[in-house]
Amino acid sequence: MEEEIDLVGKAFADHYNHVLDNDRPALSALYKPSSMLTFEGHKIQGVEDITAKLTSLPFDKCRHVISTVDSQPSTFTGGIVVFVSGSLQLAGDDPPLRYSQMFHFVSMLEGNFFVQNEIFRLNIE
Amino acid sequence: MEEEIDLVGKAFADHYNHVLDNDRPALSALYKPSSMLTFEGHKIQGVEDITAKLTSLPFDKCRHVISTVDSQPSTFTGGIVVFVSGSLQLAGDDPPLRYSQMFHFVSMLEGNFFVQNEIFRLNIE
Repeated sequence: MEEEIDLVGKAFADHYNHVLDNDRPALSALYKPSSMLTFEGHKIQGVEDITAKLTSLPFDKCRHVISTVDSQPSTFTGGIVVFVSGSLQLAGDDPPLRYSQMFHFVSMLEGNFFVQNEIFRLNIE
Repeated sequence: MEEEIDLVGKAFADHYNHVLDNDRPALSALYKPSSMLTFEGHKIQGVEDITAKLTSLPFDKCRHVISTVDSQPSTFTGGIVVFVSGSLQLAGDDPPLRYSQMFHFVSMLEGNFFVQNEIFRLNIE
């Protein structure tokens, strides 16, 4: 039986990828001024800069397919950590790119989370 | 210039892999009763069970080679999150296995951290 935290982690990962693939500017709702993103080693902080980075990614049309989602409670923040692996199918016939990603969500109010920490890496040599 | 947090993250990742490859029982010093490890989807909690899992991994002799380490402060815990990608060279001539791993360290005392959250995944389809 899946634990509730696994369902929350999967629901978030699905939601994030759906927005990223279909309505990137709406990602801004997930971040706060304290939020940090490290994307392929490049560090970005804050709602505007993170949203600008994510909306500028050079993938006109892409589709994220999730392989695994692992979630754990972040005991000392009332939040959760989520680790995602998957593949990124770009437009055209290029083979998909494997990636891994982590999120650390912090709780604002009951049932409301924002992304405090996010790290993304393509799985290439 | 590398920030201090990057140096701390890299130092930890190197230390962890050195102990894992050379003196696994000593890993117990990194965990507390609240610590959680998810290893290839299998959830384990607490010092004894995590150490037992890591010491029982079916790699008699293996060597971890780190490709990337990304670190961020975990603002609300005084800790850090560290995301590692690398490859695992098993004994013999098998090709190395790519993996990704995240750690969430929580601070105990000034300069002392323990692993509260750890998630490991091989990067295979």
